Amino acid sequence: MALKLTAEEVSAFLIELFPGWSKYYDVLSLDEQGMRLKMFVGERHLRPGGTVSGPAVFAMVDAGAYLLTMAHIGREAMTVTSNCSIDYMRKPVAGADIIGEFRLLKLGRTLCVMDVLVYSEGDPAPVARANITYAIPPARQKAD
Amino acid sequence: MALKLTAEEVSAFLIELFPGWSKYYDVLSLDEQGMRLKMFVGERHLRPGGTVSGPAVFAMVDAGAYLLTMAHIGREAMTVTSNCSIDYMRKPVAGADIIGEFRLLKLGRTLCVMDVLVYSEGDPAPVARANITYAIPPARQKAD
Amino acid sequence: MALKLTAEEVSAFLIELFPGWSKYYDVLSLDEQGMRLKMFVGERHLRPGGTVSGPAVFAMVDAGAYLLTMAHIGREAMTVTSNCSIDYMRKPVAGADIIGEFRLLKLGRTLCVMDVLVYSEGDPAPVARANITYAIPPARQKAD
Amino acid sequence: MALKLTAEEVSAFLIELFPGWSKYYDVLSLDEQGMRLKMFVGERHLRPGGTVSGPAVFAMVDAGAYLLTMAHIGREAMTVTSNCSIDYMRKPVAGADIIGEFRLLKLGRTLCVMDVLVYSEGDPAPVARANITYAIPPARQKAD
Repeated sequence: MALKLTAEEVSAFLIELFPGWSKYYDVLSLDEQGMRLKMFVGERHLRPGGTVSGPAVFAMVDAGAYLLTMAHIGREAMTVTSNCSIDYMRKPVAGADIIGEFRLLKLGRTLCVMDVLVYSEGDPAPVARANITYAIPPARQKAD
Repeated sequence: MALKLTAEEVSAFLIELFPGWSKYYDVLSLDEQGMRLKMFVGERHLRPGGTVSGPAVFAMVDAGAYLLTMAHIGREAMTVTSNCSIDYMRKPVAGADIIGEFRLLKLGRTLCVMDVLVYSEGDPAPVARANITYAIPPARQKAD
Repeated sequence: MALKLTAEEVSAFLIELFPGWSKYYDVLSLDEQGMRLKMFVGERHLRPGGTVSGPAVFAMVDAGAYLLTMAHIGREAMTVTSNCSIDYMRKPVAGADIIGEFRLLKLGRTLCVMDVLVYSEGDPAPVARANITYAIPPARQKAD
Repeated sequence: MALKLTAEEVSAFLIELFPGWSKYYDVLSLDEQGMRLKMFVGERHLRPGGTVSGPAVFAMVDAGAYLLTMAHIGREAMTVTSNCSIDYMRKPVAGADIIGEFRLLKLGRTLCVMDVLVYSEGDPAPVARANITYAIPPARQKAD
């Protein structure tokens, strides 16, 4: 499944859409097999106890899946989340940034299915796993 | 399943934990059958196109489930999300606040299982559905 | 969302597709709001301990969602499951049949989203909950 | 995470519990990283069109997760499924057996979290993905 956008192109598109985006995220690698995305953890991401909150982990899963889908279908800002299931497995490491390893499992006509393991940087035990499906906009479907 | 905390008590506890909480959320009703929670939609919750973003809907689902769990088990700030599966079904109405209707399905020794339908205020078609499970902290388990 | 098939019509279609179907299932009610489906529990559905197995509960959830989707879109045997998330909450009652209460949450152009609570007959506490999405075949999509 | 049972031991235990088990399943490999399980496809697993049905794929996911959990915790027949989320991505290859590649993501005190990719034998594109969580029986928890 060849890429339509490089890491640089998809990041530039995100910055157009969400000007503050690059303050929080960095695409570490992107190829046909998948993507590694880093989220810089700040105050706004923390829950009582000082670790990254569940919604902050979800937000990074969703952002990464949006990016990975567009890397494969092109600049389609109206691509939207259809479904996500997430398991929180371990408490994130306090003070560590968060890294998501995304895999593309299926790029279909109407749906793009991915999964992801989320890590605290420097720790090999995943803090969360998720699967997430994006719906590809009908305009894009017609273009196939 | 009798409540341990009223709507007022659980809201007060959330404000202790997250001082800004009441700017974004309001418990509309809470009884043994479930809870209705309103999220006041602001700029920070929007995605391109001006509608509420997927992560903002998820954040309200997670906040409501945290509240509903504590309404049943008491003030246990370390109660954490174990699993959530969410389907996004319709685009939220632009400019409308978001309302979640939560049901408690099972309160067990270690897990609390809930589901929720999310609406744009004033529109009867749900924008999202989710099921969410919270893990009850071991200290609390021993207390049973 | 008006029905295209009655309980009798959809049951008759299932019997055409799976001749043994009516030995295991009975549509108790079907209207625009949803469906109640009964599964007659036999030896093949049991796990060690004599209660209904998890895969047997899943099979009834999947069968009911297939039925409910076709009740709304017509006789489309190639309609297939896209996604299902299921929580097992309580041990089924030994010797009791199983009843599913299905709700249609969204009938879209490409996806039909439903949820279901599963009960042991005669017991008000649900044994499982699930959400399930069926993909509507492209041929049917073009017909819209 | 060292194994408590080998592939042979866990298979032998399954045959005790379900005498017909080895007619349908074969553990291809099992180590600390995960497990490969084969399901021999027969008439009972097929849906209209001659491909493996969704519930048959689910049954193999559930059986494999049961096996993998017991390989890590020992002979605990009352270990039960807590949650499973499954995405069906591609039509299985007609006439091909089904192979599941299971990973253990977390073995906790009360929950065992796994994921799996399901393939038609000989085809590299996965037909389904699932995540599944088993609840470890309280007796076993106390033994820790």
